[in-house]
Amino acid sequence: MTIGETAAVLRENNDYLIITHLRPDGDTMGSASALCYALRKIGKTAYLYNNPQFEDSYPWLAEPYLAPEGFNAKYIVCVDMADEKLFPEGFKGTADLCIDHHPSNTFYAKNTLLWPEKASCGEIVMELVKELCGLDPEVSDLLYVAVSTDTGCFVYGNTTAETLKAAAELCFAGARNAYLNKILFRTSSKARLALEALILSSFLYFHEGKTVISVVTKEMLDKAGAQEKDCQDIAALPGRVEGAFTSVTIKEIDANSCKVSLRTNGIVDANKVCAVFGGGGHKMASGCTMDMEAYKAAKVLADIIGGEYK
Amino acid sequence: MTIGETAAVLRENNDYLIITHLRPDGDTMGSASALCYALRKIGKTAYLYNNPQFEDSYPWLAEPYLAPEGFNAKYIVCVDMADEKLFPEGFKGTADLCIDHHPSNTFYAKNTLLWPEKASCGEIVMELVKELCGLDPEVSDLLYVAVSTDTGCFVYGNTTAETLKAAAELCFAGARNAYLNKILFRTSSKARLALEALILSSFLYFHEGKTVISVVTKEMLDKAGAQEKDCQDIAALPGRVEGAFTSVTIKEIDANSCKVSLRTNGIVDANKVCAVFGGGGHKMASGCTMDMEAYKAAKVLADIIGGEYK
Repeated sequence: MTIGETAAVLRENNDYLIITHLRPDGDTMGSASALCYALRKIGKTAYLYNNPQFEDSYPWLAEPYLAPEGFNAKYIVCVDMADEKLFPEGFKGTADLCIDHHPSNTFYAKNTLLWPEKASCGEIVMELVKELCGLDPEVSDLLYVAVSTDTGCFVYGNTTAETLKAAAELCFAGARNAYLNKILFRTSSKARLALEALILSSFLYFHEGKTVISVVTKEMLDKAGAQEKDCQDIAALPGRVEGAFTSVTIKEIDANSCKVSLRTNGIVDANKVCAVFGGGGHKMASGCTMDMEAYKAAKVLADIIGGEYK
Repeated sequence: MTIGETAAVLRENNDYLIITHLRPDGDTMGSASALCYALRKIGKTAYLYNNPQFEDSYPWLAEPYLAPEGFNAKYIVCVDMADEKLFPEGFKGTADLCIDHHPSNTFYAKNTLLWPEKASCGEIVMELVKELCGLDPEVSDLLYVAVSTDTGCFVYGNTTAETLKAAAELCFAGARNAYLNKILFRTSSKARLALEALILSSFLYFHEGKTVISVVTKEMLDKAGAQEKDCQDIAALPGRVEGAFTSVTIKEIDANSCKVSLRTNGIVDANKVCAVFGGGGHKMASGCTMDMEAYKAAKVLADIIGGEYK
């Protein structure tokens, strides 16, 4: 669907429930909150599904929009969600509209607004908000969170001239970028900083340093006193090593499973590697879960990645 | 002077030597290289003064523009330089034109193009380049380096809607932001990462955590195998601690002197504190040199800063 068609559908319906993906990030939360705000501004009843994992992300973003107990949704919108697997329990098959920027989107919703060249879902929701009610300072803040977090504050390879233009437009409309940047990118708990120190001193190197793997064990988290909320974007750390083509962060879940985040310079297709284990995402950034011990997973992934350089 | 007046002066003269400040950063180097490129494009002879400290910064930026031995400059331009104290030896009193964005500029040059509300000197040079010859991909790369490095890739508090708009314009004109960001912000030597691990685990806390001081000793540098070029922007690290109002990085020079970088949220005036020791800069980011042992300097600064909260 186009922006205009999507806006028309949203004007026609009511009683919206907006759903964010599992392990919510700033893009899904900022996009959902901004859409909820805009729908309310045009007179609709709209709420966010109370994702139990908000607590580990940016709960203050979602808080004003959470659905009350027993809210009877008539139209379900999910944002920044490529696959129904990322839906919370009990909502599979219910999506009326999906707004997304992932090229791997599986078109599971009745209607889909997909713009795969956008760095963030927030940029798509921004166009929709402009169509529905225009930008004001409050919605610009929410959209700025979405756009900036999905680009690491405009530093990741997905950032385009269009992304920067959108960010400028949000700031001209009143987004408090300096205030938000401080919270989102420049404030870390002492536990997070302790965890980073441990991670930065424990990288594993493969393929003459082209592959850098960071294994983050529960023991490291305990030592640093770090919780889930202290682990945001730790997957960016191994990619900082000079000469790294492919970086992997493997987070131990338990003795037999771990969560993998893979980032590449494009030579290795991250989506393809993660698909081997039932995961996916983008060519340069993907994720999966592996049912094995974390250091074993490092060895298995290193072997697969090594084959991809040839 | 205005952009138009400055452009007129630059069209009238010839045989330019462009001077960058001591301890050159991306803004002074990118601004100088871009100006040199633009002057050559309009047919002028123009070179960069061969700052001996380029090696510790981004030598590849300056390399195509370095003045040959015995070049006889007729017009001297300095960029991003607030004070003649930052001039290299032998050039004091020679500046024909200064292009700068520091509010603390002392108007030491014959002519000054000062735009203190700009986040970077690069944004001023960008307007000048547009007036002289227009933006092309090559000069846009150089200007992107200037604008992005002085804002920490658009994350620092100095980043405005105008900064993001300028960055978008540079990217539309061909600046390779993803490629440059990877080099400038997302690639670290192993020594740098080892140094960061040491820094992140050795912060000193004062005033209930409102002041965080990082002392970086020569011993830490040795342990990490880090050189000057591995120390870029380490002053941003202590400011990341949750609850920090003021962050200080003190780099040991020898047993009796150290280099101080002070960053604040504005409650403490960094410029005022650094002025006590003959330094200065901006209200939220300033520097100075102190003639005492590094941990002693930490105590002295903590006392002064503590007084400023009252």
